Amino acid sequence: MGKEGNEWVVTRTGRAPSNIAVIKYWGKRDEKLILPINSSISVTLDPAHLSATTTVSASPAFESDRLWLNGKEVSMEGVRYKNCLREMRARATDMVDERTGVTIRKQDWANVHVHIASENNFPTAAGLASSAAGFACLVFTLAQLFGVKETYEGELSAIARLGSGSACRSLYGGFVKWNMGQDVDGKDSIATQLAEHTHWDDLVIIIAVVSSQQKETSSTAGMQESVRTSPLLHFRAQEVVPQRIKQMEEAVKTCDFEEFAKLTCADSNQFHATCLDTSPPIFYLNDTSRRLIGLVERWNRFAGKPQVAYTFDAGPNAVMFARDQEVAVLLLQRLLFQFPPLPDLELSSYVVGDQSVLKSAQLDSQQDLQTIPVPAEMAGAVMPLRTPGELGYIICTRPGQGAYVLDADNVGLLDPISGLPLQLHQ
Amino acid sequence: MGKEGNEWVVTRTGRAPSNIAVIKYWGKRDEKLILPINSSISVTLDPAHLSATTTVSASPAFESDRLWLNGKEVSMEGVRYKNCLREMRARATDMVDERTGVTIRKQDWANVHVHIASENNFPTAAGLASSAAGFACLVFTLAQLFGVKETYEGELSAIARLGSGSACRSLYGGFVKWNMGQDVDGKDSIATQLAEHTHWDDLVIIIAVVSSQQKETSSTAGMQESVRTSPLLHFRAQEVVPQRIKQMEEAVKTCDFEEFAKLTCADSNQFHATCLDTSPPIFYLNDTSRRLIGLVERWNRFAGKPQVAYTFDAGPNAVMFARDQEVAVLLLQRLLFQFPPLPDLELSSYVVGDQSVLKSAQLDSQQDLQTIPVPAEMAGAVMPLRTPGELGYIICTRPGQGAYVLDADNVGLLDPISGLPLQLHQ
Repeated sequence: MGKEGNEWVVTRTGRAPSNIAVIKYWGKRDEKLILPINSSISVTLDPAHLSATTTVSASPAFESDRLWLNGKEVSMEGVRYKNCLREMRARATDMVDERTGVTIRKQDWANVHVHIASENNFPTAAGLASSAAGFACLVFTLAQLFGVKETYEGELSAIARLGSGSACRSLYGGFVKWNMGQDVDGKDSIATQLAEHTHWDDLVIIIAVVSSQQKETSSTAGMQESVRTSPLLHFRAQEVVPQRIKQMEEAVKTCDFEEFAKLTCADSNQFHATCLDTSPPIFYLNDTSRRLIGLVERWNRFAGKPQVAYTFDAGPNAVMFARDQEVAVLLLQRLLFQFPPLPDLELSSYVVGDQSVLKSAQLDSQQDLQTIPVPAEMAGAVMPLRTPGELGYIICTRPGQGAYVLDADNVGLLDPISGLPLQLHQ
Repeated sequence: MGKEGNEWVVTRTGRAPSNIAVIKYWGKRDEKLILPINSSISVTLDPAHLSATTTVSASPAFESDRLWLNGKEVSMEGVRYKNCLREMRARATDMVDERTGVTIRKQDWANVHVHIASENNFPTAAGLASSAAGFACLVFTLAQLFGVKETYEGELSAIARLGSGSACRSLYGGFVKWNMGQDVDGKDSIATQLAEHTHWDDLVIIIAVVSSQQKETSSTAGMQESVRTSPLLHFRAQEVVPQRIKQMEEAVKTCDFEEFAKLTCADSNQFHATCLDTSPPIFYLNDTSRRLIGLVERWNRFAGKPQVAYTFDAGPNAVMFARDQEVAVLLLQRLLFQFPPLPDLELSSYVVGDQSVLKSAQLDSQQDLQTIPVPAEMAGAVMPLRTPGELGYIICTRPGQGAYVLDADNVGLLDPISGLPLQLHQ
């Protein structure tokens, strides 16, 4: 090694986005290797608004592998962490650290422990695929630290998959396909990019985060139960999804919003249908989710063609795609009309993320909400419940880029000298 | 005719129960003939608590066919009424009326109009299959009036089916199967009795009627949309239901509650799953329905085997089967614990129908509700929401007999002299 003793600490920081599936992954054919029963397609969310940032440090001074999530130390004994770390260590190469001048040789990595600190820029509890961003970021950043080169395309995504299935899709930006693969060892169960986020750059994503979140069935336990008990799930995986994957690939390729919306809504609903077909049934959608679906469906029908698509993961929050900025403004107006914030909340704390939609809507404060007209499709209809605070908040974002390296000196989460967390959170 | 001129009126009154499907009917292969895409099995509800009563009168003095539902005159122009009446008229025979001494000959019926009055003994708006009881009762009572003899077994059920699919199952008591049939003319799409209600006489049925009923998709429109758009529905009809029909027939035959409960819950959930798989999705279950399902599933899991089965038709109300009176008492306690009535409501107005369960539970007034212990399965769990009035009311009933004749002089709804409604309701 380049320096004597235990003095050196090398550090890397990376960021990986969250992603939202538009053709859903639900059900594993191999629990250990996390191999799915069908392929899936996702849209990567702009890491500026929904991402994990992870700093990894290595030092011979470290006595064990340690992990801090959002400032709180958690055990690394979980098999998913262990699997990712083992696979990454096995691929470590000779590495020269420019900052410290340290050279670590391939065979030395096995004896060096790592410290890992990871944070999300969105609430973990909000049910917004934090584990996907987290594991993608872990694998991506360890690859920087260990100098890992992929020996086949998608190798890193296959390792991220060992942490959390959908994490494999978070390495890439834009529109991503997770091929279910066929190999027993999972080598071909990898993510590939269908298109960059710039390929379809007028899409706007608005996420409605529902306030009262009941305790939910974890997606890991839920999909196990579905595989075991739902007759409909197997039909879906074998007969319905393969066709939808092809159709969605084509819709993405041609930026065909109508087809994209139709497939996205239908596939979200079918995923939740298989949850309901599980014994005992799993419910992720609640009455607020139903009202959000009603809002979009009513509007789309009234407009004569889809303006907005919705999709729900294993929770009640709606992720909505507006076909362009103009429609996004109309969608945000409708959301604020039907789901007003609590009276004491600043509008800018209720609508977070990309502020351009709020600006385009010329909404600066809660008083401005009074100026929102009754949506045309509601004219003459029974006015829906409008309970302030039914939504916790609304996130505006867009399709975004995949995982990338950050300058650890500026935004690292671990002290570059001690390798311990820089900030301790509650 | 036996009397001269227009002076005579002949009258018959009948009663037909509601029924609840435990293997669900959802989807028609022929809209006009109301032929289903799969067979179904139902339990007939005790007509003392959930039934339609219908009086039909015929007189040469009547100028047209007229119909009063719950005291309000409605048009008979609907194709469903017309079809039932046409088919029944075509099967009329020579008939001697004992009360009036009138003889009407087969060929005369074509020139005699009918008056029909029908009432439910439960709220029509409650979404408790009022059309099934109503059409079964109409056909059954017209058969009495017209002296119709079935030329093949189930012929009357095939005619009731033309009014409302599930009406065919309401002619018989106990456990009833509606065979989907194969004939193009629907002649073999008939109901047959699997077992009398006395065959399995310890079952208790408790219905939780949910208060806030949103405007729902009618089942006629809903199943059309599902047939058109849900890929899962066709798989269900072709691959899942046939097996479940066999299993349910066996469970009924052997009074196997465990199997009955498993199939009933799974099939209700699968039916609602196909509604969710419809584009746009159809929601009949709401958050209260989910809480009712949660109550039962939690208890069944805790008990180690099913104590209660639940099923939901095209609405949010739960129909629950308790394995016996003892379990029914425990179920009612649990319902009253988690879903207390509004403070000003008499307990006997909140729990209606068969009062024996309430009596066995030794609950006389709302004060007694304080004595209900926390259910064992709730110990240590997060206490669920307990909002008074979340349920409108609770009906206790049992499996019951099929359609039967009433003495029109005592309970008829039409004046035997004028043939006009005896009571006008709001």
